[in-house]
Amino acid sequence: MKQIDTAIIGVSGYTGVELLKILIQHPNFHITYVATSEGGETISQLYPSLKSVFEIEVSKIDIDEVAQKSELVFLALPHKTAMEKVKQLMKFPHLKIVDLSADYRLELENYEKYYLPHLDPENLSNSVYGLPELYRDKIRGSRLIANPGCYPTASILGIVPFLKYKREGTPIIIDAKSGVSGAGKKCSEKTHFVNINENMFAYSPLNHRHTPEIEEKLKQFGGKDEKVIFVPHLVPVTRGMLVSIYFEVIQEFDPIEVLENFYKDEPFIRVRTTPPTMKDVAGTHFCDIFANHRGNILYIETAIDNLLRGASSQAVANANLMFGIDEVEALPKIGYIPLLLFGMSW
Amino acid sequence: MKQIDTAIIGVSGYTGVELLKILIQHPNFHITYVATSEGGETISQLYPSLKSVFEIEVSKIDIDEVAQKSELVFLALPHKTAMEKVKQLMKFPHLKIVDLSADYRLELENYEKYYLPHLDPENLSNSVYGLPELYRDKIRGSRLIANPGCYPTASILGIVPFLKYKREGTPIIIDAKSGVSGAGKKCSEKTHFVNINENMFAYSPLNHRHTPEIEEKLKQFGGKDEKVIFVPHLVPVTRGMLVSIYFEVIQEFDPIEVLENFYKDEPFIRVRTTPPTMKDVAGTHFCDIFANHRGNILYIETAIDNLLRGASSQAVANANLMFGIDEVEALPKIGYIPLLLFGMSW
Amino acid sequence: MKQIDTAIIGVSGYTGVELLKILIQHPNFHITYVATSEGGETISQLYPSLKSVFEIEVSKIDIDEVAQKSELVFLALPHKTAMEKVKQLMKFPHLKIVDLSADYRLELENYEKYYLPHLDPENLSNSVYGLPELYRDKIRGSRLIANPGCYPTASILGIVPFLKYKREGTPIIIDAKSGVSGAGKKCSEKTHFVNINENMFAYSPLNHRHTPEIEEKLKQFGGKDEKVIFVPHLVPVTRGMLVSIYFEVIQEFDPIEVLENFYKDEPFIRVRTTPPTMKDVAGTHFCDIFANHRGNILYIETAIDNLLRGASSQAVANANLMFGIDEVEALPKIGYIPLLLFGMSW
Amino acid sequence: MKQIDTAIIGVSGYTGVELLKILIQHPNFHITYVATSEGGETISQLYPSLKSVFEIEVSKIDIDEVAQKSELVFLALPHKTAMEKVKQLMKFPHLKIVDLSADYRLELENYEKYYLPHLDPENLSNSVYGLPELYRDKIRGSRLIANPGCYPTASILGIVPFLKYKREGTPIIIDAKSGVSGAGKKCSEKTHFVNINENMFAYSPLNHRHTPEIEEKLKQFGGKDEKVIFVPHLVPVTRGMLVSIYFEVIQEFDPIEVLENFYKDEPFIRVRTTPPTMKDVAGTHFCDIFANHRGNILYIETAIDNLLRGASSQAVANANLMFGIDEVEALPKIGYIPLLLFGMSW
Repeated sequence: MKQIDTAIIGVSGYTGVELLKILIQHPNFHITYVATSEGGETISQLYPSLKSVFEIEVSKIDIDEVAQKSELVFLALPHKTAMEKVKQLMKFPHLKIVDLSADYRLELENYEKYYLPHLDPENLSNSVYGLPELYRDKIRGSRLIANPGCYPTASILGIVPFLKYKREGTPIIIDAKSGVSGAGKKCSEKTHFVNINENMFAYSPLNHRHTPEIEEKLKQFGGKDEKVIFVPHLVPVTRGMLVSIYFEVIQEFDPIEVLENFYKDEPFIRVRTTPPTMKDVAGTHFCDIFANHRGNILYIETAIDNLLRGASSQAVANANLMFGIDEVEALPKIGYIPLLLFGMSW
Repeated sequence: MKQIDTAIIGVSGYTGVELLKILIQHPNFHITYVATSEGGETISQLYPSLKSVFEIEVSKIDIDEVAQKSELVFLALPHKTAMEKVKQLMKFPHLKIVDLSADYRLELENYEKYYLPHLDPENLSNSVYGLPELYRDKIRGSRLIANPGCYPTASILGIVPFLKYKREGTPIIIDAKSGVSGAGKKCSEKTHFVNINENMFAYSPLNHRHTPEIEEKLKQFGGKDEKVIFVPHLVPVTRGMLVSIYFEVIQEFDPIEVLENFYKDEPFIRVRTTPPTMKDVAGTHFCDIFANHRGNILYIETAIDNLLRGASSQAVANANLMFGIDEVEALPKIGYIPLLLFGMSW
Repeated sequence: MKQIDTAIIGVSGYTGVELLKILIQHPNFHITYVATSEGGETISQLYPSLKSVFEIEVSKIDIDEVAQKSELVFLALPHKTAMEKVKQLMKFPHLKIVDLSADYRLELENYEKYYLPHLDPENLSNSVYGLPELYRDKIRGSRLIANPGCYPTASILGIVPFLKYKREGTPIIIDAKSGVSGAGKKCSEKTHFVNINENMFAYSPLNHRHTPEIEEKLKQFGGKDEKVIFVPHLVPVTRGMLVSIYFEVIQEFDPIEVLENFYKDEPFIRVRTTPPTMKDVAGTHFCDIFANHRGNILYIETAIDNLLRGASSQAVANANLMFGIDEVEALPKIGYIPLLLFGMSW
Repeated sequence: MKQIDTAIIGVSGYTGVELLKILIQHPNFHITYVATSEGGETISQLYPSLKSVFEIEVSKIDIDEVAQKSELVFLALPHKTAMEKVKQLMKFPHLKIVDLSADYRLELENYEKYYLPHLDPENLSNSVYGLPELYRDKIRGSRLIANPGCYPTASILGIVPFLKYKREGTPIIIDAKSGVSGAGKKCSEKTHFVNINENMFAYSPLNHRHTPEIEEKLKQFGGKDEKVIFVPHLVPVTRGMLVSIYFEVIQEFDPIEVLENFYKDEPFIRVRTTPPTMKDVAGTHFCDIFANHRGNILYIETAIDNLLRGASSQAVANANLMFGIDEVEALPKIGYIPLLLFGMSW
């Protein structure tokens, strides 16, 4: 059985610990190096929950050490910092890298328009967008994966089966909802309990950076320019993502049938006949999709776990592909929290 | 000072207790009779929170007693039961009635299409839809008010300022979010804590009964047929409602300006320059509205308290109008829960 | 009607805004000056929820301006900062002051043992502990009130009716639970949503600063030294406090009867015959108390709103007394959130 | 590798689905039969979250079929129903049974005092209380395990290391806190979201049925009668349990050292040097314990997942022992929800 030494850079963020939780149980990826900006602790000090489960020193990031100790590198870093590190890491030809930031997701022009001047255009041109359902073969052959954003994953997976039915020149409305872990660990109005508990609101409406990411990939897939109206909302749950999509279609079809055909060989897409819920996917790599229409307006709803399918489990899926391992190896399948079904006595 | 004897029928539901909480402090409306289907308790037994605050016997509903003991009647009953009671109550010409159910909101044809055969078409034809910002004068002159649904209130208030700019023949997308108190006190998947906590999902997508209510009122207001694509979602908060509205417009304008003009004399509509939040309105009669556009797609977001502006405080506003009292008398203004502002030390 | 100009220093914290919410509706206390450490905003900028409800400039704290513009001063400041300000303010003989910090609550020796060297021992010796049920007359005659801590308020009110029955030399166990607003607005493990949501834990067990406060006041009341074992816990609710108290008693009695006698004239103490709940008191000044015993072990449970009875509404009660106004003027009585009673249909 | 056919009776409750989630991944226990009171659905219909993960018909309970199709039977049934089934199942000598109800936990006299007349005293006398840390050898040799209650598990594990230091004749105070899944799936004031969200309260204070269970086992362990003062509280989290224990001790010792010695060989007990949190154990079989003292009063705090260590994972641990499998096989170790550590940038 393949044994691949694996590093996690940026293990003190949510996506970092979710990577750790998956890799602890991965038969092929062997955690040999974890790092944060300052280092100096151990994993059980960083995450008391993992005491007696897994232990390793947390190093202060050192590129040479990474190259020495690993073959596979996951980066869970803020954008800009990510590409600084990737640029150096890519000089080591034995390394394969999955970057969870936005730094390699967009074409150069788009990136520079919405973020900042790119520090590593050379590697950018070779990176592959890590959405397996769309780019499986490219991912297999790549050394550098740009792991998609959470909202784009949930949006794109819902839209692409129906793109060919869409009326040209009409917009795609995306009303999105995310749990608070999506806002990161920084303190802000978005993360203080007293602010967000019992509350919900939109943020960055119409100008969120995920808009160009979604538009770019839809164009790649469908060949046409798409205009996306994207409004994300923050929801008082720990983890979970729900995306509601609306657009005009030009013909009649059974939306469930379209979904079932499009995703018939995909083990981690579940087609639902009732609207999906955040809890049905929380803790898993699943993307649940439902669709219906009223007249010529199509309505699609997708649900994912923002930290898993929206980041860390998708990163592991990409790594599996890069190393020629079964794509579904170690991908979490069993949800977290029990649901209740009424009508049953016991 | 006017003293009006007031009855609350159906005081054991959420909108019933919210009515009680407002009327306890109303200088003109004097609670003289409260009832439920079975009666037999007192208010402090029904609501321990109100012990030492307000007490009255809870009667088993008796129409003659209502007529004897009150002039103003609020009904917080399930639909169908409501019109059974209203039909009898309207025989007493001194009574003025605010019905919180759906029974008198729609035109006969619509009601019978989406609910059931109407038991009281005669009074239906005289009822007035209780949305003060639109129907203030009619409400003043009416004996029977059909209090609007919560989603329709939040939707209509957001849409009407912009209706004249809307491209004819294009749909209105309404993606709505409601706290759990909107699902009522019945046990179900929607209300069991283990199911809805840490969860969010759409329900009754595209076929919720509030769709025809919204369409009918928009048509009354704007003169044109409107097609509404309405998808409500349940959110794990106790109370609160957020409605996101999207449609195509035919000209350029400053949405904030349009809102400020349209609502300039309305004390309980607040125009926001950032997206509204559920908590900023929870506990109040306020409707907060924000709007922005990307190209020719307009995006509007409104926030209300589903139990207050979405039901009980709006009912009191209507009653104030019916009795020639200051419309804003006793309408709650001070929100519940403190918000946090960062950057400030103390 | 008396009109008293009132200042709130430290209006950007939770207790500060709760003071504001009460004073906005107080017929006698007229808000003339509010301040934070930096100033420069208005109330509606600080608290969007209060837009169209109340507006005033937020000043940068200036002692002379406070003295000029007010007679009554509430301070919602961190300890140490509080006594710096109080020391200066007390030089103005027309001012009456309610300090919500710990700085004037303890006897000098205790304060210096658990906090830091006192900056204002002179005024400390004249301050009065602001728990009306115990110190009503002293409060009336005072210029400087030390508003009690939240946990001490809930603990002391529960204990004192039974102190005479307690077996001497045995400890008082206090297991306390508080909502997150009690942890303040600072960012920490205690306040980040992802940390505290779906979580609960004890903090500062056995060595919390409220322990000496409770012990000192119980000794003042009962004349004997008491040893308090105090363990607070953080609970994932916005506001609310529950305190469970256990100790050994030396004789038989009916705990409910004892409570009813002890508090028979107290309008804001409610004796419960079932355990109190946080929600029954949230948004109010009420303290709900229940007690029962198994053999010679007494169990008492009290519930208060940590921001109101635990801070701001108690501050207003004290101010009412200081100015010879009805003690209950403007004290909030109507709880926030509807409770559900089962078994009832409507 | 041993393959043991396994049945789950009562799979539609929370402990039932948690059993399912563990057994799906258990290398030895092969799920061959699941049943509810009515049957007629499949697992993916009962639990949409498990669609594409695991499927099996849900049967209507049939004793003969159970005996035919399995060797190991888990019962997650209400008390009384449980012993009706166990009595019949025990007639099949090849079956080994783990009962999650209270029916076989207590000695006959105690059971009949606190519950009802026992329907199966014969098997009761042979059952073993399934707390591995205390009864490991007995569990190995047993055919019928009485799985402990959640509160008793968390309490007993915290108390027994210190029992020998306890002052005789003094009480043990247990102030306990549980997430809402502990209240079961029935609708009640305890489980309706609007009631319990933002709320907390004690229930069944001093007379909860877990009191005799704890007292009986402590007596068995320590040889002396113990008087337990037990007050449980409901907390607005989905899952999690925290138990705070207080009693008087007669000598000095280092509580952490005592814990570490007592549990040094126990892989699923973690001794903490700061108070444990619900989230650090949620989703795992771990019991985290912290202890400290003030003078001669000892304070112990334990945390478990009420559905796992408090029921289902403990049931699997017992089954592992009964079948001579490694006790820790398949016991969940990796917690659910990411925690945040401050001070770290990435």
